[in-house]
Amino acid sequence: MNTNHSKLHLKYLGIDTYKEAVIYMRKDCHICRSEGFEAETRVEISLNSRSLIATLNIIETDLLKPNEASLSNYAWEMLSAKNGDEIKVSHPKPINSLSYIRSKLYGNELNENEINFIVDDIIRGQLSDIHIAMFLSGSVGDHLNKNEVFHLTRAMIKSGQQLKWPSEVIVDKHCVGGLPGNRTTLIVVPIVAAFGLMMPKTSSRSITSPAGTADTMEVFAPVNLDAKTMRKVVERENGCIVWGGSVTLSPADDLLIRIERAMDLDSEGQMVASILSKKIAAGSNHLIIDMPIGPTAKVRSLSHATAIKNYLENIAEQFSIKTHVIFTDGTQPVGRGIGPALEAKDVLATLGGDPSAPQDLRDRALTLAGHVLEFSPNVTAGSGKKLAESILTSGKALSKFQAICNAQGGMRDIPSAPYTKAIVSKKKGYVIKIDNRLLARLAKLAGAPKAKSAGIELLTPLNTAVEIHQPLFILHAETEGELQYALSFYEQAENIITIEENA
Amino acid sequence: MNTNHSKLHLKYLGIDTYKEAVIYMRKDCHICRSEGFEAETRVEISLNSRSLIATLNIIETDLLKPNEASLSNYAWEMLSAKNGDEIKVSHPKPINSLSYIRSKLYGNELNENEINFIVDDIIRGQLSDIHIAMFLSGSVGDHLNKNEVFHLTRAMIKSGQQLKWPSEVIVDKHCVGGLPGNRTTLIVVPIVAAFGLMMPKTSSRSITSPAGTADTMEVFAPVNLDAKTMRKVVERENGCIVWGGSVTLSPADDLLIRIERAMDLDSEGQMVASILSKKIAAGSNHLIIDMPIGPTAKVRSLSHATAIKNYLENIAEQFSIKTHVIFTDGTQPVGRGIGPALEAKDVLATLGGDPSAPQDLRDRALTLAGHVLEFSPNVTAGSGKKLAESILTSGKALSKFQAICNAQGGMRDIPSAPYTKAIVSKKKGYVIKIDNRLLARLAKLAGAPKAKSAGIELLTPLNTAVEIHQPLFILHAETEGELQYALSFYEQAENIITIEENA
Repeated sequence: MNTNHSKLHLKYLGIDTYKEAVIYMRKDCHICRSEGFEAETRVEISLNSRSLIATLNIIETDLLKPNEASLSNYAWEMLSAKNGDEIKVSHPKPINSLSYIRSKLYGNELNENEINFIVDDIIRGQLSDIHIAMFLSGSVGDHLNKNEVFHLTRAMIKSGQQLKWPSEVIVDKHCVGGLPGNRTTLIVVPIVAAFGLMMPKTSSRSITSPAGTADTMEVFAPVNLDAKTMRKVVERENGCIVWGGSVTLSPADDLLIRIERAMDLDSEGQMVASILSKKIAAGSNHLIIDMPIGPTAKVRSLSHATAIKNYLENIAEQFSIKTHVIFTDGTQPVGRGIGPALEAKDVLATLGGDPSAPQDLRDRALTLAGHVLEFSPNVTAGSGKKLAESILTSGKALSKFQAICNAQGGMRDIPSAPYTKAIVSKKKGYVIKIDNRLLARLAKLAGAPKAKSAGIELLTPLNTAVEIHQPLFILHAETEGELQYALSFYEQAENIITIEENA
Repeated sequence: MNTNHSKLHLKYLGIDTYKEAVIYMRKDCHICRSEGFEAETRVEISLNSRSLIATLNIIETDLLKPNEASLSNYAWEMLSAKNGDEIKVSHPKPINSLSYIRSKLYGNELNENEINFIVDDIIRGQLSDIHIAMFLSGSVGDHLNKNEVFHLTRAMIKSGQQLKWPSEVIVDKHCVGGLPGNRTTLIVVPIVAAFGLMMPKTSSRSITSPAGTADTMEVFAPVNLDAKTMRKVVERENGCIVWGGSVTLSPADDLLIRIERAMDLDSEGQMVASILSKKIAAGSNHLIIDMPIGPTAKVRSLSHATAIKNYLENIAEQFSIKTHVIFTDGTQPVGRGIGPALEAKDVLATLGGDPSAPQDLRDRALTLAGHVLEFSPNVTAGSGKKLAESILTSGKALSKFQAICNAQGGMRDIPSAPYTKAIVSKKKGYVIKIDNRLLARLAKLAGAPKAKSAGIELLTPLNTAVEIHQPLFILHAETEGELQYALSFYEQAENIITIEENA
């Protein structure tokens, strides 16, 4: 084919479509006309030795000159594009993995090879959001069998980096579905590392919550460590708490989760592959999973929790990963703080042995740390929690936490918000219900997690007896505008915290 | 909530995402920050009394000023937006229909009410492409039962205009999946209208093919008629051939088809609802369906054809629509021309009784017209085709066609392409296979359907004996560049027309 016909020069427009590859071309573009491209056509883009398939959006104004095209930021980065680069656009070849996805929708079992092709095409930007939604639709509920989940997990592990560590026992913990304020990781890691087990922890930043573990850790120390720096920290201190995004573990998982969130769909198989692929790629072989159960948590019933637990333990065993799933209370936030700095205060109070530290956070952390410690051949079953408590009260956990922060780049002070406002109870009674989701949203409206010191300080957990006008929680914000914005949301929202006269 | 916080002024950027609603907002926008909006968030947009839900794309350059936002063209039109309009953006409420879609993915039957909600939310722009893909994934193959297809068809009919006609018997024909050159409609309508049956035909433009029936009809006469003008034509001439896009019949169907095409997925239920909803909304109650079967046609096997036929006839009966499905040959193009003007020439030759007119097109049209005529109580079964032939040879069909063209706005001459090139056989032998899809693509590369006179004139149908250097087809183009572009594609493509020494 006459190659000049299919070339265009790139112009950066800076359009962020998250992880969807989009190409922008002019309506009167000669390629659109001759190739029959129209808005939403999938087109193949080549630049030097790289290529991907993108969805076409047509520009009907002068944002682009004739012979110019642009790319969404994701496609721009995948192709390592620069302004003025010459790209070639053409019709893509048929994608084999799409026929496997269709086969799954018809209820057929996918074999290892087919699953590898699907994951590979997701990573290489060959499949559109609609195609990924088809794959996830075919995986709904228990529609992936255990063989498929095993192959999917393995394909996802192979899709990115795999870390190796200089120890036989590598421990990890994971919490399924966030619970506001549940920052046990920052307490568990130093306890376990102080004991002498190796725990190279990678955590996520907030996606939809007021703070992810990495956001809270960042209040104390840098978390954007590359794999080499992370290794140095772990070799020196037996543990770390870093952001997983810098080390590209199971990148296929991020691409799937993005669409799953939009679908708001549960798939046990996808959840299990997601959790295990991240942990196995991180080099863990002993895993404690914290699974909060509650009406406004991710897992809402014991039966659903049990199904996921069986799935997880079965697949983990095939990878020779020791896994214990611990069911925990998911009916209310953990600790007092919601938002990076406020959660960091709870963590530091707990590590420092402050008697006013939130006891629920302390107790959860000790329970989980105890289970992790029992992975050591030197710790007998049932004695882990007591051991964890002795490490905490001795001050060794605090010292280890400070050492980890220093190794990651230096320990910082926790900032306080300049604007605060106490929200008081309108009646006397008992706290009988807390809506985790609305509370999280309120903290986000106040500025969390980008404004580190913003968020909510919860004063009255479930079953607290409150007087009229007694403060229920304090809003923290870095600007007066954000404080007002959160307040006006609170005034319109119903039943974030429900008070009734009888408990 | 403080309303000033959530308002932005619109600026037109002219980005065509086809039928996906997208909102463009600046990265540093105060609303993004306070509401926690990020790229790909679904946000509700209100303007005056209208609202819809759109996907957020973040602009990281100065395409937009602070306090400005833009919309994709589809969202812009749905909200009747103007430059400078003030929009309000907020978090959307949970969408009930999404839980019905999830339920379908789990294999549950949807009731009438649930299907109505889904179709209504598709029309109102509440569901994203990903959500529509979930619904179609749940409908794959035979996963919609006959009750569901009935309710879906009815909901789709109600989603747009419904035409009514001043006659008890309203006839129509439909072809499932295009076959290049298959322009029987332009012959069937005048035969049937000349006989005296009412046939108000709405046709589609090309979506992926070198010409749709409406594109070919437009060579002769205007086809963008509104419902009122269409009615005048039909009342005067008993028939019309207009573009369905101007009369918004079953608009939900267009929104579903767009995603189905991207999924490349067959769903018998969706296909049946698509065909019947358009035809019933157009006011037809007697329907002939032409179903070409062949390896490169839409329906590839007799068993698949039979399944769709049963489905169609069953659902049509529930709507009291008389339907006959006619299986036809789908192994090669029909007639000689592929492209609007070249097809128009075949049609006019057939109507004019030209002995060189393509006999396959003439015979197909007479077969279909015969079946349509037999819907008349005055035509006995089996005698329709002979009757159709007598109307054609008498010249009454040609007169009626001219009258219809005049009623639609005046009959035009057929244009000829200034650039042509004969493609010759490289060997002596027999034409044993024609790839419909590659041939269609070649016609598009030559400029069809936008360049009306561009396309392909096929000289050697299946089983033709050809000499070496004998022309197989002639490429037609309106510019030399397009001719060269098609030629270079032809040189690289393999086996568009397969010649073998023994037939």
